Amino acid sequence: MIKQVIIGVVCGAAVLTVGILIGHFGIAKSGTSAPSWLKDVAKDVDESLIEKFMSEVDNIQIQENLRSLTKVPHMATTAGDEETVQIMLKRWQDPETGLDKAWREEYWVYLSFPDKNNPNTVTVVSPTNTVLHTIREKEKPYTPDQSDPEVVQPYAAYSPAGHVKGKLVYANQGKPSDYSELNKTVDLRGTIAITKYGGAGRSAKAINAAPYGVVGVLVYTDPLDMNDGLMSDANETYPHSWYMPPSGVERGSYNIDFGDLLTPHLAAKEETYRINATDITGIPPIPTQPIGFEDAYRLICELGGEPAPDAWQGGFNCTYNFGGPGFKPTSSFTNSDVKLDIYNYEEVKPSSNVMGFIRGSVEPDRYVIYGNHRDSWVHGAIDPSSGTSVMLEITRVLGKMVKQGTWRPRRSIIFGSWGAEEFGLIGSAEYTEQYFAALSERSVAYINVDIAVFGKKLHTAPVKAPGHEKSVYDNWLQYTNKTSPTHGLIPRMGYLTGAGSDYAPFSHYLGITSMDMSYTYDKTKTNARIYPAYHTAYDTFDYASKYIDPGFVGHQAVARTAGNVLIRLADSLILPLNCADYAESLEEYLSTALNLYEQKLKTMNISMEPLKHAVTSFRAAVSNLEKVIQSPDLANETPLKVRWINDQLMLLDRAFLDPLAFPDKYGFRHVIWASSSAGKQTFPGLADAYANAESSGQASDWDKVHYHLSVLSQAILGAASTLTDDMQTQTWRK
Amino acid sequence: MIKQVIIGVVCGAAVLTVGILIGHFGIAKSGTSAPSWLKDVAKDVDESLIEKFMSEVDNIQIQENLRSLTKVPHMATTAGDEETVQIMLKRWQDPETGLDKAWREEYWVYLSFPDKNNPNTVTVVSPTNTVLHTIREKEKPYTPDQSDPEVVQPYAAYSPAGHVKGKLVYANQGKPSDYSELNKTVDLRGTIAITKYGGAGRSAKAINAAPYGVVGVLVYTDPLDMNDGLMSDANETYPHSWYMPPSGVERGSYNIDFGDLLTPHLAAKEETYRINATDITGIPPIPTQPIGFEDAYRLICELGGEPAPDAWQGGFNCTYNFGGPGFKPTSSFTNSDVKLDIYNYEEVKPSSNVMGFIRGSVEPDRYVIYGNHRDSWVHGAIDPSSGTSVMLEITRVLGKMVKQGTWRPRRSIIFGSWGAEEFGLIGSAEYTEQYFAALSERSVAYINVDIAVFGKKLHTAPVKAPGHEKSVYDNWLQYTNKTSPTHGLIPRMGYLTGAGSDYAPFSHYLGITSMDMSYTYDKTKTNARIYPAYHTAYDTFDYASKYIDPGFVGHQAVARTAGNVLIRLADSLILPLNCADYAESLEEYLSTALNLYEQKLKTMNISMEPLKHAVTSFRAAVSNLEKVIQSPDLANETPLKVRWINDQLMLLDRAFLDPLAFPDKYGFRHVIWASSSAGKQTFPGLADAYANAESSGQASDWDKVHYHLSVLSQAILGAASTLTDDMQTQTWRK
Repeated sequence: MIKQVIIGVVCGAAVLTVGILIGHFGIAKSGTSAPSWLKDVAKDVDESLIEKFMSEVDNIQIQENLRSLTKVPHMATTAGDEETVQIMLKRWQDPETGLDKAWREEYWVYLSFPDKNNPNTVTVVSPTNTVLHTIREKEKPYTPDQSDPEVVQPYAAYSPAGHVKGKLVYANQGKPSDYSELNKTVDLRGTIAITKYGGAGRSAKAINAAPYGVVGVLVYTDPLDMNDGLMSDANETYPHSWYMPPSGVERGSYNIDFGDLLTPHLAAKEETYRINATDITGIPPIPTQPIGFEDAYRLICELGGEPAPDAWQGGFNCTYNFGGPGFKPTSSFTNSDVKLDIYNYEEVKPSSNVMGFIRGSVEPDRYVIYGNHRDSWVHGAIDPSSGTSVMLEITRVLGKMVKQGTWRPRRSIIFGSWGAEEFGLIGSAEYTEQYFAALSERSVAYINVDIAVFGKKLHTAPVKAPGHEKSVYDNWLQYTNKTSPTHGLIPRMGYLTGAGSDYAPFSHYLGITSMDMSYTYDKTKTNARIYPAYHTAYDTFDYASKYIDPGFVGHQAVARTAGNVLIRLADSLILPLNCADYAESLEEYLSTALNLYEQKLKTMNISMEPLKHAVTSFRAAVSNLEKVIQSPDLANETPLKVRWINDQLMLLDRAFLDPLAFPDKYGFRHVIWASSSAGKQTFPGLADAYANAESSGQASDWDKVHYHLSVLSQAILGAASTLTDDMQTQTWRK
Repeated sequence: MIKQVIIGVVCGAAVLTVGILIGHFGIAKSGTSAPSWLKDVAKDVDESLIEKFMSEVDNIQIQENLRSLTKVPHMATTAGDEETVQIMLKRWQDPETGLDKAWREEYWVYLSFPDKNNPNTVTVVSPTNTVLHTIREKEKPYTPDQSDPEVVQPYAAYSPAGHVKGKLVYANQGKPSDYSELNKTVDLRGTIAITKYGGAGRSAKAINAAPYGVVGVLVYTDPLDMNDGLMSDANETYPHSWYMPPSGVERGSYNIDFGDLLTPHLAAKEETYRINATDITGIPPIPTQPIGFEDAYRLICELGGEPAPDAWQGGFNCTYNFGGPGFKPTSSFTNSDVKLDIYNYEEVKPSSNVMGFIRGSVEPDRYVIYGNHRDSWVHGAIDPSSGTSVMLEITRVLGKMVKQGTWRPRRSIIFGSWGAEEFGLIGSAEYTEQYFAALSERSVAYINVDIAVFGKKLHTAPVKAPGHEKSVYDNWLQYTNKTSPTHGLIPRMGYLTGAGSDYAPFSHYLGITSMDMSYTYDKTKTNARIYPAYHTAYDTFDYASKYIDPGFVGHQAVARTAGNVLIRLADSLILPLNCADYAESLEEYLSTALNLYEQKLKTMNISMEPLKHAVTSFRAAVSNLEKVIQSPDLANETPLKVRWINDQLMLLDRAFLDPLAFPDKYGFRHVIWASSSAGKQTFPGLADAYANAESSGQASDWDKVHYHLSVLSQAILGAASTLTDDMQTQTWRK
């Protein structure tokens, strides 16, 4: 489940300050009688080891990993999923290239499946109940693996089963504003709405529809949004290009909250308390089904009623009408209903994480965590197996060094191959719930590499790949950059404000500094909002090796980059987390917030001064800590002093957690990086509260703005205290 | 605010394992070229220093501290309070006996006061509005300080102002069952209820009354519960003994939640968001006033109606009747109403904590916190100045060593002199809200000494006091003991499950291992539920020095004991926190829970196996950690290994926090030590949920029992992971 496309996104403080600190710390070595551990304790990251690691990362190994992981469909908890469990265990338990240990952790999780014996159907039925058209049940296969009987029928996971029919209407992206607009001229009661992917979350399209009396929802991918308008599999779409074929359907989990839906905040063990399924929120209240655009084309172009607004038009060569409701008088479907027969069922099933561990030599109680999910919707060559192939190559190279005794990280490394991510980040979320305490206490950072390569055909290749000239860094700088007040022109990193992959429970629930990394295509060259085979039956080895990353040099670049970060996090004497960049982000957020809100808030007698003061104090704390880190005195200090600095850096993101700040957003506790619906690049709670107050005008809503200002000020000052040597001397505002 | 009488209560893991570890850890010392810090880092607590400390603790100094602190009434935010602020600052900033630094921290807190210009009145008024009797406005003075104009009129803080009258009824302790019983025969609508202290929280007496239509509440101390029945100040009560004089009134804060009531979860800074005062819960909904027992005697003995049950009878030489409602026909008060004219007002005022700091030498980023509140209701000789006098003596002795350069603790020590505790632990709670992150990260333990000595006239004196023979330990063992499966006969320590003093925000909100310590009287010799001058105008230096601790040797014993614990926590190489005792407590709780609940829960298909498994796993983790601590290998380990063990011990209590477990209990997050109303010595959430389900019989309430079992199992397993070297190998139940 990737909801956002991201380039090497780093959340929070996780910015590399590599190099600067190398060789910085050392202890006096004038004698021989010092204890034997002294040298180990003072050891910093070894650059030559990183070079060695980089040189051993092999693109062909990654390719073969991918081939093996994508042999069969491996949807969560299926036999194919178990095959990948075995692959991971075998690799991580390999006596020559494995880890110190590897094992399975199981959770009993609530999943939703279509019924093999009663496939979901969508039909156009005449008033006399004659079936005039049947939507394609499965995608058209182009390769043998695509016709594997284990290819799951496209469906909307967590859509309720049900049998509904009604006149069809076109509701654009299914946003609240879309239904509101449509409702102005069309009576929506008893209708079926067809909607495009994008604009609103999957389940939101049905949640937004139900209050208007809509009884069922169809969802499709418009060729304009994904295929740059291309529609024909005769010569335009896969297997002729990376574009989505006409029968392709994006599957997906139609829910909002992450983690097992029956066990919020509790690890889903067999005997764990479960809420009633009827109390689950955030899933479709009415039957919902995704369909391919070849079928959507038939349905939409036959619709009657007024033409939809320009902004609603898509890639089909017809006018998108609202629907009469229903089809136009000239259509052979006139007066017909669309009927959904949905047989989805829910089941609590055991899902496995596979865990791997390399014990740290000097600080075994500090964890660097690296993970990706293992489950896919079908073969999942890109999502998630590209990431898993990269992870397996990293563990192969590191594992070999560990087994040969040539390297052991300073800190422990945990590898996680998460289960059931596609159903809502379940494996990773349950893991963070189960080990909440120990992970909070000990985790230095979490690195996520899910979709390793989104595509590369549309721009120059990544570097250190044979025969190419530009480095990853140069590429990055060319395609995505920003000007930092501190650093000048640098690669831009996004913020992990959403819940698009398994970093979410680590970052948002545990406050662990997290990074999500991928190699992606040039967004200026295509409208595709993601790689077009995403969540379809076409996301296969064939597709990946032909259209996403021929030669697997993109994968190799990601493996090198992610592994490089991993080793630095594990081995650096001082953690390579640059808190000055955190201050810069807060300053940018503050500046935006002041521009957007200060004037109006003054008229409401709500002061933003405490927030300004908090950000200023945070910057001061950062500057002081940086001086300590860069001070030559550090060389004479005890290992406990170094540990203290590292603890300050490690715990910085934790200090921003407030488990009560967002009562309506499950799992979001980080007051800086939480998701926001206001669409402003600033503090999420403040932005959402402000948007809400502005829209309602109610005093109690303005109170919430003030509340979020206080929550933020307190959290930022609290985080400043975390960075401050002596919290008591810090100047807090009255 | 002390709601429970406690002897040397230790919460959580805070049990001394002193001695065992002394000299345990050392590094090889065979050369001279090792870095200079090596010796400091490996240094353990110095027993001779503790002996020196103990010998320098002086009872006369404590007496003089008390004299100075109790010169004038020092209710929170009054001029007298500011005088005590100045005393603390002067002492802690003294160049010869002060701390490294000391400063003031202010919060703007919501307080409630009676109006000096319009004192609250309680009268008996005839049907023609003739005042037949007026309750005494202030207590009768016996010494000049007791007639100080700054002695605040007895009142119920946070009772609303208002003017109500009605027929009087006697409602025992104001528990829900009391009103329910009374309501069987008496129409309570429009009545005034008179209730005894005890049985229900202060504000609960009014909260429980209001649903029955009661319009006002009086509260008094029955002589049976406090004075062993004695009532006459001619020869029985103070100034002739420690007993409460007839006009004595226990003041108090009539609220349930702790911390500033307008700024839940936020530090009450000047510009912090405040909720509306009308949204405060847990305070009396109807006017409430405490009165002395001489007045209560008049009112109760004149009541008409049926005789109250035997259990409701008290120390007066008359039958306690329910009230007709109202007075009996033979009374001169017959047909009269009781009228309350309450003029309490609320105000947001700045309240100060005074903070002191001694910087640690080796681990400055680890804090041992020692605190007590400074504010009293009147002169507060015992509550809280006995504790403050002890704290000042401890800081004098330690400060002198620091200033002379003869000692500096391994870890930092923070001293807190909290403001506005009497209004609901406000100063300490705001401090924990403000510094939530840094305190959570760094605090090793919190020691609270509020009322240092509750009394000693009724049993043998404490030891190491000149001329006495028994040690504190022997005394303790004689009067309060238990048989531990592990240790045999040992002094019993209670659990800090309530919110009786400033340990509550540390223990319940932050999960910091906490201890509350005092010297108390033999409970078998008196019914007094607390020392009888508690919260009255008689809690003066005269009272303390004559009746509570003549010679101040009890204070001296507490100062020695608390200081001893403080030094060990600050200086020990391995923290003296015995996690085996934690396991023993969990086993006891489990055993009680199994006896009480397992059979019934089986019939509801709710298994207690996961809880059993969790406690067993916790014990296993403890045993493994103990082996590590006691291993001779530790001597060859790095300082980081020692730090790790200490982090495990330090963070153990934190691992039991669940901020969502008790949505209705403000500030309670610790799933083992939270308060409980079920009255069972077992897991509080489970006990309360079970009692609730048993009473309602509703399926959704049995679900909550299951939920709390899962919360507990997960928290205990999580805590086991905290104690476990490698969390991954731990066996979690499916």
